[in-house]
Amino acid sequence: MPREAFVDGRYLPFDSAKVHVEDRGLQFSDSVYEVFAVREGRILEMAPHLARLKRSLAEIGQGMPMSDAALGVHVREIVLRNRLADGLVYLQVTRGVSKRDHAFPATAVRQSVIMTARSADPAKAAKSVAAGVAVICVPDIRWGRCDIKSTALLANVLAKQQARTAGAYEAWLVDESGFVTEGSSTNAWIVSEAGALVTRSIRDNILPGVTRAGLLAAIAGEGYTVEERSFSVVEAKKAREAFITAASSFVLPVVTVDSTKIGTGRPGPVTLALRERYLAEAG
Amino acid sequence: MPREAFVDGRYLPFDSAKVHVEDRGLQFSDSVYEVFAVREGRILEMAPHLARLKRSLAEIGQGMPMSDAALGVHVREIVLRNRLADGLVYLQVTRGVSKRDHAFPATAVRQSVIMTARSADPAKAAKSVAAGVAVICVPDIRWGRCDIKSTALLANVLAKQQARTAGAYEAWLVDESGFVTEGSSTNAWIVSEAGALVTRSIRDNILPGVTRAGLLAAIAGEGYTVEERSFSVVEAKKAREAFITAASSFVLPVVTVDSTKIGTGRPGPVTLALRERYLAEAG
Repeated sequence: MPREAFVDGRYLPFDSAKVHVEDRGLQFSDSVYEVFAVREGRILEMAPHLARLKRSLAEIGQGMPMSDAALGVHVREIVLRNRLADGLVYLQVTRGVSKRDHAFPATAVRQSVIMTARSADPAKAAKSVAAGVAVICVPDIRWGRCDIKSTALLANVLAKQQARTAGAYEAWLVDESGFVTEGSSTNAWIVSEAGALVTRSIRDNILPGVTRAGLLAAIAGEGYTVEERSFSVVEAKKAREAFITAASSFVLPVVTVDSTKIGTGRPGPVTLALRERYLAEAG
Repeated sequence: MPREAFVDGRYLPFDSAKVHVEDRGLQFSDSVYEVFAVREGRILEMAPHLARLKRSLAEIGQGMPMSDAALGVHVREIVLRNRLADGLVYLQVTRGVSKRDHAFPATAVRQSVIMTARSADPAKAAKSVAAGVAVICVPDIRWGRCDIKSTALLANVLAKQQARTAGAYEAWLVDESGFVTEGSSTNAWIVSEAGALVTRSIRDNILPGVTRAGLLAAIAGEGYTVEERSFSVVEAKKAREAFITAASSFVLPVVTVDSTKIGTGRPGPVTLALRERYLAEAG
């Protein structure tokens, strides 16, 4: 269990880290969040995560609760206080506590800022990378603003649970035209039959993944053919390789989609090279 | 301010009513809720609210946290402890506190049960009824399971805020075909040009409103022509009358839709009769 959490300006023993029952994050999912990867004590991609947080907040009519510099200090501090080497920092900002009413509070209230840190086991992650993971495909029933990293995640929860029940690691969400939008908590990629790296455009109602962008930046100019376009489940099943990206798993090979083997059914060489490249650059 | 709130089996001073930062209601909107109207000390429609709560929970893979009878006792108790005559009881059930992971906790955790009570001013409500309210129309961008009364309400919050900014009371959500689905926190009704009561079918991805059902039951056999079907914004603007239903406002006349006067631009006689009928029956 984590040692301490940050809530509204204070570091508290993890067990006593609480928010009021009329916090708008709890009652309305009127809140957004970020997850930062921590690797060997270093926080990855701090600036892009904070930039995305700022954008998410702006899209729902909120400003940043404090400066980037101050948030950065607290992210680092929560890592130190929890003696985190490898793991994740979770940062959530809600509109604050207010008498229940769907509309924004008439007079501004103080936003709630919550931070927790949890360690992860690099050995366990290495095993997942070595074996690859299974994904299933489920209909994408989420709302029309998936570009906002909000905590209105019930659809994602139900999709992830469907995956877990099916023995899979992730659920790929499929739109009405049969195209994969993204995973329930990851971005989805394939290496196409022609050898191109394909991932959906962030203009198409998906989350602009920080790891996704970091990977694209890391391999720029390295000769990969990158196609930011939608791909269908049918195309994915015929792909040479498939993988997912997220702050919590970096680049993770997908070896089956709905039980159909992707390529050889083993983690692909391009995927593994991309993982190394990403970690060398960002981590 | 309310005096006490109920959290996880205990009545606490309102200010100290809190949940842990890893409550899945806060992190994932993995929770559902009900709002009970209280009128002259009596709780309205207890049984249908509890039945809907049970259904919502079942749809997201949760059971009831306690028996209907026990929940009913606590709803009554929170009313008493807050000396509520007229107002609302808010009841939220979350999947509980667990290490952050989209999927359900592998081992069951205790659900969080939260209850608050707030008084409302009947005189203020009477004024709204006498004057009628304005609604605006906005695109319905919510998810595909609006039949579940979940706290994944960010889209509703943004719609309601758009209404507030436009000086309106409610936002009607409009699907891609131009049909009104429901309000951001109410069901939408019209009295059509032909004099029929029209409200969308609950089979069409809307919340099965308890007040909506209560009103339909109250007027059954009274000679109204009731059409449970979708109506468009165009049809609404040509309607004789319009109104909304919700536990928080019972039956409330709508006098403008996007600034277009409905009927005479004053609360309609059918609407006012329906309000009286509903309150006589349920309240």
